[in-house]
Amino acid sequence: MAPPSPTVAAAAAERLAGLATPPGALGRLGELAVWIAAAQGQVPPRPLDNVRLVIFAGDHGVARHGVSAYPPEITGAMVRTFVAGRAGVSALAAAHGVAVRVLDIGVDDDLDGVPDDVRRHKVRRSSGAIHVEDALSAAETEAALAAGAAVAREEVAAGAQVLISGDMGIGNTTPAAALVAAGLGLPASEVTGRGTGIDAGAWTHKVEVIDRALARAGDSLTDPVACLTALGSADLAASTGYLLEAARLGVPVVLDGLMAVACALTADRIEPGAAAWYVAGHRSTEPAQSLALAKLGLEPLLDLGLRLGEGSGAVAAVPLLRSAVAVLRDVALLSELLPDA
Amino acid sequence: MAPPSPTVAAAAAERLAGLATPPGALGRLGELAVWIAAAQGQVPPRPLDNVRLVIFAGDHGVARHGVSAYPPEITGAMVRTFVAGRAGVSALAAAHGVAVRVLDIGVDDDLDGVPDDVRRHKVRRSSGAIHVEDALSAAETEAALAAGAAVAREEVAAGAQVLISGDMGIGNTTPAAALVAAGLGLPASEVTGRGTGIDAGAWTHKVEVIDRALARAGDSLTDPVACLTALGSADLAASTGYLLEAARLGVPVVLDGLMAVACALTADRIEPGAAAWYVAGHRSTEPAQSLALAKLGLEPLLDLGLRLGEGSGAVAAVPLLRSAVAVLRDVALLSELLPDA
Repeated sequence: MAPPSPTVAAAAAERLAGLATPPGALGRLGELAVWIAAAQGQVPPRPLDNVRLVIFAGDHGVARHGVSAYPPEITGAMVRTFVAGRAGVSALAAAHGVAVRVLDIGVDDDLDGVPDDVRRHKVRRSSGAIHVEDALSAAETEAALAAGAAVAREEVAAGAQVLISGDMGIGNTTPAAALVAAGLGLPASEVTGRGTGIDAGAWTHKVEVIDRALARAGDSLTDPVACLTALGSADLAASTGYLLEAARLGVPVVLDGLMAVACALTADRIEPGAAAWYVAGHRSTEPAQSLALAKLGLEPLLDLGLRLGEGSGAVAAVPLLRSAVAVLRDVALLSELLPDA
Repeated sequence: MAPPSPTVAAAAAERLAGLATPPGALGRLGELAVWIAAAQGQVPPRPLDNVRLVIFAGDHGVARHGVSAYPPEITGAMVRTFVAGRAGVSALAAAHGVAVRVLDIGVDDDLDGVPDDVRRHKVRRSSGAIHVEDALSAAETEAALAAGAAVAREEVAAGAQVLISGDMGIGNTTPAAALVAAGLGLPASEVTGRGTGIDAGAWTHKVEVIDRALARAGDSLTDPVACLTALGSADLAASTGYLLEAARLGVPVVLDGLMAVACALTADRIEPGAAAWYVAGHRSTEPAQSLALAKLGLEPLLDLGLRLGEGSGAVAAVPLLRSAVAVLRDVALLSELLPDA
């Protein structure tokens, strides 16, 4: 997969070096500005007026097996909260002018009364409990990947300049950590975190669940699409398809926490080089997220101890992208201030 | 000095705990929201529509003694660039709706043609070279502190909900590092950084200049106002007066890099407790900034390798304050979603 334009990156770096600021004084904002310009293919980059978040919601069979602090019924309730615009990420998105769309990809509820558009890409009710069965059939995995890709194309058709993938699904850190373990060849104990806040006993159990899932997956671990079938879920497969299509379409992505990063890692395994289109919005408290980001060579912009999910850390980082664009667009060039120098 | 209201902080923490998010999931955004509510005396906090930056500009005698990568003439040129709205912080402030005001407090130039308002609080042309003479007379220090306090009152009268102190002045990291060394009882070698980008030889010389200044100041080191006279400058004294008055008026402040933090440390020495009104916008690359923040018990929100000055790191952090306010204001309460729970 082709990266953001090296030619445009070089031109952007030249403009950055010519700004009326000391060399390197803009730190990561300068690097970010160069990357955005290269992704857009334009120097200076355009203002980021159209940033769009899609939340992929789904349930997970493991949630009924003691890996989460919350009951699975919360997933559907939170989909309704996103529709009402009252969730954590809703508040952040409204504050920063980010468009929000929520999709029921695999919620274990028919969500009666929720707008039809929310359910248009639904693949199934819940996904399998990965320690005892595959999350999906191979056909469902393909359907979810295709749904995510279609959603990315819809968002780009709506003018998206930056895309974000959000998540909602009680129990989802278990399959996401399993995907990271599979992608990095790590044992469950290294990738397992506390999710929404489980205690030490539940953590030990969660490690065992992931270990059993990895053992059950066996040969599938070397094939990223087979990993989604064995260890993932409908919502994680759809998010992977969405992130992959964003990279194919050349649209930059701000990654959120563990779910988005596990999907980004999987996308980069499916089509190596996809991660060149991604920037890490924040460091979550989940160890698997940091491990996967390190593998992808991505350093988070924010580190605020967030563990809300929903795309919240990525949305909170959007103003930093706008800061980066602003400095490369609007700061005077030294040649303007000192034309004879 | 009275801190932000503990009673309101407790009410804000109670609201935070009642949001439809897992306990602690908002990380530092949650803590920040509680602090802003307490500073405003209101739960939920009001949106931050009126954030104001004042840039205190001045020259420093040490700049003609090999401590900076740039000539002093840049200070006046940059004041004109702020007036024209074309500097680094101008771009960031425009992107994030922050009002910018620049003041010539001690620039070594008459700045002909610059609007009179910019020079209204001027204390003197340049400040003394601190390794050989006092930066200011005692009367000038008092005048600069009073000017900064008057400016804070003017900004609050203009509706400021949050204040930021920015800096411009070639050579200013030398007196600022000296103020931190004095406040923390540290040797010059521990507080001295590379400023806008000096080489190893110039760094060694800068350490010697700060060491000589500290030795010359002698008994003044124990008195924070005397430190401003001996080691500071007109612009740093004005910034100190501004930060102190902001705390007295109960207006929260986002601190920027070394200059703002050196002044905040000095303000907190003058009136212990002032720092309870400050939050650290970012971690600069200057070691003295991190040392002073640690002393004040402040952890930076951003760490992006910025070393531009001007207030830029604080302005880049403003959207995080708005994120914090948004979540505490706009996220549903669990009691609204599950009225029977």
